[in-house]
Amino acid sequence: MKNFFFKNYCFFYINFFLIDLNIENLNFADDEIIFDIKDLINSSKNHLTFFHSKKYQQEASTTKASYCVTLKNLVEYLPRSCKAIYVDNVLLSIAQITSKFYPDSINDDFDNTVKEINEINLENNIQHGHNVLVGDNVEIGNNCLIGHNTIIEKNVIIGPNCSIGSNVIIRNTIIENNVSILDGCIIGKKGFGFFPNNQKNLRYPHIGIVYIGKNSEIGSGTTIDRGSLSNTVIGQNTFLDNQIHIAHNNKIGNNCIIAGQVGLAGSSTLGNNVMIGGQAGISGHLKIGSNVKIGGGSGVIKDIPDNSKVMGYPSKHLRQFLKENK
Amino acid sequence: MKNFFFKNYCFFYINFFLIDLNIENLNFADDEIIFDIKDLINSSKNHLTFFHSKKYQQEASTTKASYCVTLKNLVEYLPRSCKAIYVDNVLLSIAQITSKFYPDSINDDFDNTVKEINEINLENNIQHGHNVLVGDNVEIGNNCLIGHNTIIEKNVIIGPNCSIGSNVIIRNTIIENNVSILDGCIIGKKGFGFFPNNQKNLRYPHIGIVYIGKNSEIGSGTTIDRGSLSNTVIGQNTFLDNQIHIAHNNKIGNNCIIAGQVGLAGSSTLGNNVMIGGQAGISGHLKIGSNVKIGGGSGVIKDIPDNSKVMGYPSKHLRQFLKENK
Amino acid sequence: MKNFFFKNYCFFYINFFLIDLNIENLNFADDEIIFDIKDLINSSKNHLTFFHSKKYQQEASTTKASYCVTLKNLVEYLPRSCKAIYVDNVLLSIAQITSKFYPDSINDDFDNTVKEINEINLENNIQHGHNVLVGDNVEIGNNCLIGHNTIIEKNVIIGPNCSIGSNVIIRNTIIENNVSILDGCIIGKKGFGFFPNNQKNLRYPHIGIVYIGKNSEIGSGTTIDRGSLSNTVIGQNTFLDNQIHIAHNNKIGNNCIIAGQVGLAGSSTLGNNVMIGGQAGISGHLKIGSNVKIGGGSGVIKDIPDNSKVMGYPSKHLRQFLKENK
Repeated sequence: MKNFFFKNYCFFYINFFLIDLNIENLNFADDEIIFDIKDLINSSKNHLTFFHSKKYQQEASTTKASYCVTLKNLVEYLPRSCKAIYVDNVLLSIAQITSKFYPDSINDDFDNTVKEINEINLENNIQHGHNVLVGDNVEIGNNCLIGHNTIIEKNVIIGPNCSIGSNVIIRNTIIENNVSILDGCIIGKKGFGFFPNNQKNLRYPHIGIVYIGKNSEIGSGTTIDRGSLSNTVIGQNTFLDNQIHIAHNNKIGNNCIIAGQVGLAGSSTLGNNVMIGGQAGISGHLKIGSNVKIGGGSGVIKDIPDNSKVMGYPSKHLRQFLKENK
Repeated sequence: MKNFFFKNYCFFYINFFLIDLNIENLNFADDEIIFDIKDLINSSKNHLTFFHSKKYQQEASTTKASYCVTLKNLVEYLPRSCKAIYVDNVLLSIAQITSKFYPDSINDDFDNTVKEINEINLENNIQHGHNVLVGDNVEIGNNCLIGHNTIIEKNVIIGPNCSIGSNVIIRNTIIENNVSILDGCIIGKKGFGFFPNNQKNLRYPHIGIVYIGKNSEIGSGTTIDRGSLSNTVIGQNTFLDNQIHIAHNNKIGNNCIIAGQVGLAGSSTLGNNVMIGGQAGISGHLKIGSNVKIGGGSGVIKDIPDNSKVMGYPSKHLRQFLKENK
Repeated sequence: MKNFFFKNYCFFYINFFLIDLNIENLNFADDEIIFDIKDLINSSKNHLTFFHSKKYQQEASTTKASYCVTLKNLVEYLPRSCKAIYVDNVLLSIAQITSKFYPDSINDDFDNTVKEINEINLENNIQHGHNVLVGDNVEIGNNCLIGHNTIIEKNVIIGPNCSIGSNVIIRNTIIENNVSILDGCIIGKKGFGFFPNNQKNLRYPHIGIVYIGKNSEIGSGTTIDRGSLSNTVIGQNTFLDNQIHIAHNNKIGNNCIIAGQVGLAGSSTLGNNVMIGGQAGISGHLKIGSNVKIGGGSGVIKDIPDNSKVMGYPSKHLRQFLKENK
């Protein structure tokens, strides 16, 4: 993942983190530094990565990161080039470290960089409604329409020929050309990821973005949260209906059709040409193949192979569901 | 259906459509014209209608339309007065034709006809909040209240004594007297109807409206989409709770009570005095009778006769559901 | 329940209500008066209470109210100090009486007391966005952030260090310190409570408030309705995700985690440390214990004891659900 918007403020000496994490049993040279924090696949030299579950042992074995926060029993899967920092709770530790690299990624307070669109020099031909606000680091393509009371907060790129409705809020998002965002959508907010803590939960950093492919449409009142360490992706020509919730890190393919009030819990991958009926829910960390059809109201809690039709809660083969429910 | 808002720009020579649809096996006189496009029941002379499923054979047999887009195997059900134009995909063809008659009905870009309510001469006594916008072709009845940041887009009639909340967006809608629309509702947008197409889905025209009967109440954050070729109807004294989604073409009767987060997939008909518990879903194209009670969380995928109580997913008789789930 | 915001306009002679309710079989002294209307537990001398179900016989037996609206067959459970007024429909009668005491509590028309925040003398250090509106009887604590287009309607207290997003609407609500309310929330509206009536449903008065404990977070597009005769409560450090609906009178404990699109039907009590998966629904008037885990998509229709894990519709023990759905 290339990080588009969140600024990595500085590099850090690795020993700085060891102190911060109360790790006393390790010792690195004083001049060993980390430039950034990445996932297992996207890391390279002088990057820090993390590895918290055997599920990812293949990715771990080939990571190019120089350092990896992990559990003691997972150290063996790492390549020799990667130095292990073992902790009790990988995700908690990585949240603490990421918040040092990206202090802006935890709080989503209202964007106080915005200005009235009339006060901004926009190069392109843009038609806009009343009371439109635009923040820092925003690009809007040619022939875009921006509706009334809409707020394009900081860190947004909108391609040409897009139609953004009224009362929309967008931040930390890249939108390709010819996309429609209908009224009342909220796109690019931090996801619902944190570590429970009895007095005050600890927010997980969200340095990912939302990416929406060309020719797509997002229905009224839909919310799409940005990713934590990877991105939330909506493919090309994928149509979402009203009041859908797409949580952080989901990757949805091309030409998908998702009906009203569907919810995706987070970090799942959907192939191309997936059709999902109204009010269905998809649990987190699942792999849904291409050409899959999911009946309305279904609750999906397992991976689904390509070309399957499922329905039910929990979902099963459509034929079986219909047979059991004659 | 009388078409209130969408302007039928002109009449068309029937041969024009034959060319447009690549139909070469038919021949009409050069002066044969179509004035409008209507459904089977509401058509009359010089209207074009469509007939795509045996389900509607009774309506087809008595249609007064002069022309009908249909499938080859359905032609026999049409009366002699109606000339058949047979195609491979009725709905796709009718979408193409309708988009010629009603080019405005496909795109729901933000309404750039709106003005600040203070700049408009409203004849009636209307109390309004800050930043209220009103579009072309809007009538607002006496003693109405319109909340802050609310946008009454073009083609809206609001009867007297209505209370519209804040952050509401309404277009292409008729609201009778004494109706409450609570904060954050989005009413009258095009429905989620289109023909899947690998590069860019083809939007189905939505020339219907939303009609809300007197004394009704629509809860916060609810979305009601306008109809495609017919209307979306909410009956009199029908109360909807928060975050409900009513898709296009649904017809809901009088004195219904619908709890939070319910979803109606589209084109279903509900009788009077229907009660629906929270989060229930109703599939498309169903007939739900009067005095029906649907338990919370139910998934309804079949017609329900009058006076029934159902629950479950898929829904069954309440007694059976409770027995099976003791 | 202390009533924070709704003004009790006056006291009433008890005989006034007897006439109003068409009760002819009772006789009180002409100088017997009622100062307020309360529930069974919180009533004291010269208060009117109500008792409509045997379920509450214990609370009824110890009430300190001077008068009680009840059913004939429940009179025997009341203490001698409490005079019974028996009616055919307790809740309908109490709604009529409450609407006399609290005429403001039935209609939630837009708040016309609001002013632009710049026009108000706020003592504390508050950062705010564009077009923020603030109503009468509002207190905002030090170091709060208020986003664009947000409307703080009348009767709101916000503690210090809170972050309120954009396009938020709040009324009749107390928010403790260090709370985050994300974009597009609607908090404090009247609940979905009324008496069905064939021409025009009769709205139940909502004189309760919404109370949100410190360190909590409310996700984007979430709606929380205020209570009718008691309050709607969100505990401390409780995190709600996007598009959740919390209906009136629910009481949620501390350190709870509630995922996206969950719905609570009303008047249920949740203990501390409750975790609820996405799209789950909780029926009304239930008691959910502490440390309960409810799987995503579940439909809860029975009480759940402490420390339970449940899933399914209707929900059952998680182990049983998984066994039955291998």
